[in-house]
Amino acid sequence: MSLLVTGSIGIDTVRTPYGVSEDCLGGSSIYFSMAASFFSPVRLLGVIGGDCPFDLAEVFAGRDVDLTGLEIRKKSRTFRWAGTYYGSMNQRSTDKLELNVLAEEPPKVPDAYRDSRFVFLANTAPALQLQLLEQVDEPVFVAADTMNCWIENEPGDLKKLLERIDCLIINEDEARMLAGQLNPVEAGERILDMGPAVVVIKKGEYGSLLSNKEAEMFILPAYPTQQVKDPTGAGDSFAGALMGYLARENATGFEALKVAVAYGTVVASFAISDFSLQGLTSMDKSDIEQRFERLRCITRF
Amino acid sequence: MSLLVTGSIGIDTVRTPYGVSEDCLGGSSIYFSMAASFFSPVRLLGVIGGDCPFDLAEVFAGRDVDLTGLEIRKKSRTFRWAGTYYGSMNQRSTDKLELNVLAEEPPKVPDAYRDSRFVFLANTAPALQLQLLEQVDEPVFVAADTMNCWIENEPGDLKKLLERIDCLIINEDEARMLAGQLNPVEAGERILDMGPAVVVIKKGEYGSLLSNKEAEMFILPAYPTQQVKDPTGAGDSFAGALMGYLARENATGFEALKVAVAYGTVVASFAISDFSLQGLTSMDKSDIEQRFERLRCITRF
Repeated sequence: MSLLVTGSIGIDTVRTPYGVSEDCLGGSSIYFSMAASFFSPVRLLGVIGGDCPFDLAEVFAGRDVDLTGLEIRKKSRTFRWAGTYYGSMNQRSTDKLELNVLAEEPPKVPDAYRDSRFVFLANTAPALQLQLLEQVDEPVFVAADTMNCWIENEPGDLKKLLERIDCLIINEDEARMLAGQLNPVEAGERILDMGPAVVVIKKGEYGSLLSNKEAEMFILPAYPTQQVKDPTGAGDSFAGALMGYLARENATGFEALKVAVAYGTVVASFAISDFSLQGLTSMDKSDIEQRFERLRCITRF
Repeated sequence: MSLLVTGSIGIDTVRTPYGVSEDCLGGSSIYFSMAASFFSPVRLLGVIGGDCPFDLAEVFAGRDVDLTGLEIRKKSRTFRWAGTYYGSMNQRSTDKLELNVLAEEPPKVPDAYRDSRFVFLANTAPALQLQLLEQVDEPVFVAADTMNCWIENEPGDLKKLLERIDCLIINEDEARMLAGQLNPVEAGERILDMGPAVVVIKKGEYGSLLSNKEAEMFILPAYPTQQVKDPTGAGDSFAGALMGYLARENATGFEALKVAVAYGTVVASFAISDFSLQGLTSMDKSDIEQRFERLRCITRF
């Protein structure tokens, strides 16, 4: 089934204990699309400025990523982010943030995308997420991400968004903040009360927690990897593989969601193994299947 | 098979956001024995002072806990600990620590305990752990715990201990410190290089990681509970159920270890649900089996 992602496209500078990656391609919709493309065709909706040095057609060459929704605004500048990861890399600081084109009008959903059935609204202002969602005719399964600044500053818009989506995919700290609950199980329940039928709480190196309104639950550790060079994009890669799998299977039941979370976990483990997109572009479907089977094996008793 | 535990017996005062438990029974060997007794007979070796207000025969009434190795030193004072847990209760401060009788000579292993086959050396000075172990004739499977102060201050003794035991059960932060590795998978590998054939890294609310010298691995999340009143004794209850299961099955292979870790996880979830021993004494074997099956269900895909 058709899968649409709307999110940022950025020029990132990332510092980790393993080195520096300057002015590399990043952004939520980029990581999402690359990860999802292993499972399903993807329709990308995003906007860049005239300064963007990357040819996205080349970046996604050989992958089924539709760039009809890529808007290039010649007079604008591309979103830029610089950050540094510390210690065991579950903490980071933002060194620079230039919204640039992200502060302008969002891109319009092209007519050819309006029939998308699976939709992922990557993190941005909830009012924009709603505005984008309204341009999709009959979505079957809509997932979204959000973050602390919207929880604090746009609670009204976020509340409206949560009533309209099927699934929230959110970091543990932000889930706690949104729910006002320290315990992640309770936080999940409170979020389900706010609207979505499904919530996925991402705990980084500690895995993820999936739950739904029927009180079903699934907990999966992160894939145990020794190679963690750059955590940027881990969450979006997780969401990309998760949604890509659901779109491919045209399934949204709990059993499918469990497998989707496992694929998300595996693909995220590749994403963090190298800088920028290199962790995702240096492996193939058989590598994914191999880690998927190993993850199943090392979590089963 | 016979299971021996040596460890502390203490009078604890615990503060958590849920209340205060003053001068309650605690100590590693107490939590361990209570947890293990659901699976196997236990032989307890420990020492208290004349001031100890608890009748351990009464505490363990109806459970197969052998108190032959309980030494009461009338002129000494019992070990006392006071601590406070914060926030989501994965952080704690020590408010008071009186070693008292623990700073004296350790108890001797009674003759009737010398044929013990499964042995758990709860956290204490590694030289004492070695001294106690030397009094057991032919142990089949010896596990030990340790902590930051011994890693920092007694590395030589700890090295000797690690060469003599089969399994180290250790907290994540301490595993990182011992191994000099931030990544828990690498930390586990370094610890296996130091001697034990098996290592279990406890990650508190994030579960545990089991690995062995044959590069087998098992990762299990914590049991998802909303009821966390007092984390004291969680690690020793985990170790108690783990060792109790192995002793009952007389098994030390990897499949048995996986199930043992799952039972440890379940019993720890009961231990933290109430103050002192109440979480362990207010449930029975069928409650354990129910959570064990649920844990299997919510981690399987």
